[in-house]
Amino acid sequence: MKTVKAYAAFEAEKPLGPYDLERRSVGAKDVEIEILYCGVCHSDIHTARNEWGGSTMYPVVPGHEIVGKVTAVGQEVSKFKVGDTVGVGCMVDSCQKCQNCEADLEQFCENGMSGTYNSYLQDKKTITYGGYSSSIVVTENFVLSVSDKLPLEGVAPLLCAGITTYSPLRHWNVKKGDKVAVVGLGGLGHMAVKLASAMGAEVTMLSRSPEKAKDADSLGAHHFELTTDPKNMKRLKGSYDIIIDTVSASHDYSAYLNLLRTDGVMVLLGVPPTPEQIHATSLIFGRKSLAGSLIGGIKETQEMLDFCAEHGIVSDVEVIPIDKINEAYERTIAGDVHYRFVIDMASLKK
Amino acid sequence: MKTVKAYAAFEAEKPLGPYDLERRSVGAKDVEIEILYCGVCHSDIHTARNEWGGSTMYPVVPGHEIVGKVTAVGQEVSKFKVGDTVGVGCMVDSCQKCQNCEADLEQFCENGMSGTYNSYLQDKKTITYGGYSSSIVVTENFVLSVSDKLPLEGVAPLLCAGITTYSPLRHWNVKKGDKVAVVGLGGLGHMAVKLASAMGAEVTMLSRSPEKAKDADSLGAHHFELTTDPKNMKRLKGSYDIIIDTVSASHDYSAYLNLLRTDGVMVLLGVPPTPEQIHATSLIFGRKSLAGSLIGGIKETQEMLDFCAEHGIVSDVEVIPIDKINEAYERTIAGDVHYRFVIDMASLKK
Repeated sequence: MKTVKAYAAFEAEKPLGPYDLERRSVGAKDVEIEILYCGVCHSDIHTARNEWGGSTMYPVVPGHEIVGKVTAVGQEVSKFKVGDTVGVGCMVDSCQKCQNCEADLEQFCENGMSGTYNSYLQDKKTITYGGYSSSIVVTENFVLSVSDKLPLEGVAPLLCAGITTYSPLRHWNVKKGDKVAVVGLGGLGHMAVKLASAMGAEVTMLSRSPEKAKDADSLGAHHFELTTDPKNMKRLKGSYDIIIDTVSASHDYSAYLNLLRTDGVMVLLGVPPTPEQIHATSLIFGRKSLAGSLIGGIKETQEMLDFCAEHGIVSDVEVIPIDKINEAYERTIAGDVHYRFVIDMASLKK
Repeated sequence: MKTVKAYAAFEAEKPLGPYDLERRSVGAKDVEIEILYCGVCHSDIHTARNEWGGSTMYPVVPGHEIVGKVTAVGQEVSKFKVGDTVGVGCMVDSCQKCQNCEADLEQFCENGMSGTYNSYLQDKKTITYGGYSSSIVVTENFVLSVSDKLPLEGVAPLLCAGITTYSPLRHWNVKKGDKVAVVGLGGLGHMAVKLASAMGAEVTMLSRSPEKAKDADSLGAHHFELTTDPKNMKRLKGSYDIIIDTVSASHDYSAYLNLLRTDGVMVLLGVPPTPEQIHATSLIFGRKSLAGSLIGGIKETQEMLDFCAEHGIVSDVEVIPIDKINEAYERTIAGDVHYRFVIDMASLKK
């Protein structure tokens, strides 16, 4: 056991603060990582504040968009060596033997994947602590290789926001010339625009906010359409092959389904607080699908990181020191970030 | 013009009655068909009674599950000759040049397909009249070839109930060993069970009514599961590759989505009267899809008829004379039919 520094939430209503954390030793298949950057995902806030059905186990150390350097490896580790640049995303382990794990879909592990924080390791008793920390130990199969070609602070959010948008674009086979619409321009939405554009799609940002048009353009969107204008929504009927819906606020699915072509699919990545209504005819006419997608498997996450390195894609980030984390939470909730806060973990040592 | 005998509805509240109908002449590309049998679809009732948003144009002659013999062909007709056994389904024409028509998806014709009744021909002014009639004239591209190997009264419902269930099973690539669940054992449901079984799938009937177990078994279902038993529903979590949902009454989509495997799809064929609620998490966990499907294209309808001839599949029917049609409507609404009424059109001549 070793003591590391971390920022943790101790109660739902209190701000996060510094904490000395006992961390597991480096096992034979483990990789020890000094964390350089950790992105701030909206899930961190929900968990820190116990907003997901009382599931938070305090103290909780959030953070699952982790980039760092390998500082030690166990004797059986073959993929990584000390000094390598690596990443860790939303998962740190899974059973690795069920049908879904065998199919490289560890996020749907039938025995329950181990989330990077506020979860249990596969022993089902050791609680996991995330990336708002000076270091982390992860079994090598859940450690990703990161190219040094890209600025590492911009790579961190790829580990969650990047793979969450990359995976559905790949699964539903987005290719050159396809018409992709993205709903919601936040941490997920801005990555969906960049990735779909890099895949050769014709990308439209659908938004309620005219002031987002300029940003959409600079991110690589080919079109910007206001969804608040009924004339627009009528004109756009039957336009898109796929709609990536990143919105977590309540909204009308049917209005967007109407914009799909025959055989089009709308993929939900965000979780509105309450169920939405859907009429069967919205799907029956045009043989449309409403689907969901959750992060992505480890193999696909590596593929995504390699794709981003090849195409020079990173997240647009605002780097903060760890002691600004509570302020960053407030600004994230207010939508006042373009488009992801990333903690410079060097600030934790000071 | 020629006068034919038909049964029509004249007002929403009044029973259907006999009618002399002026029918269009046989054009160069038309096929004239003497109708032998016509199935009774629930849509017929909704239309006769003007239950679809006031869209019924009286007098209306329902019926879109038509089997008959060719009695005349236009000079440019090449696919059919007098004496051929043929069928007509839910469509009698479409623009035949839009992207969807080119893709053999005439049911989604961008310029509007011509429904077999209570619709307009492509001239957008000639009203169409359906199969409760001694004969019908249809452009040859919308006439299907019917094998004489099967009892024709059982073939009639294939033209709507058959293709409506065959098309999604094919589109979502159901194959040997796949686990298919069918919700609702009526006109559509009983065809879904027969067709999925013939495709080699392991078929489960999901029902609220224990008395349907015996029928499900005789139709070819391998399993019968009561959906009213919470223990059952828990045990069946993650079981099925595809769920064919034929129910038109209000029901909880999420309870069924929970029974899908990773990447599973639930296909809606029925239209509940009001929108249903759906929570994004029902789709996100397991990357599931909720989709819809509408009849099928002409090419696929022919493929379905050929498949049924090859596998000896027909609908289970109760044959009635035309003057029992109003009683048949009441019994259809009450669910008192196994599983489709079919009108013997010879009774119209008496």
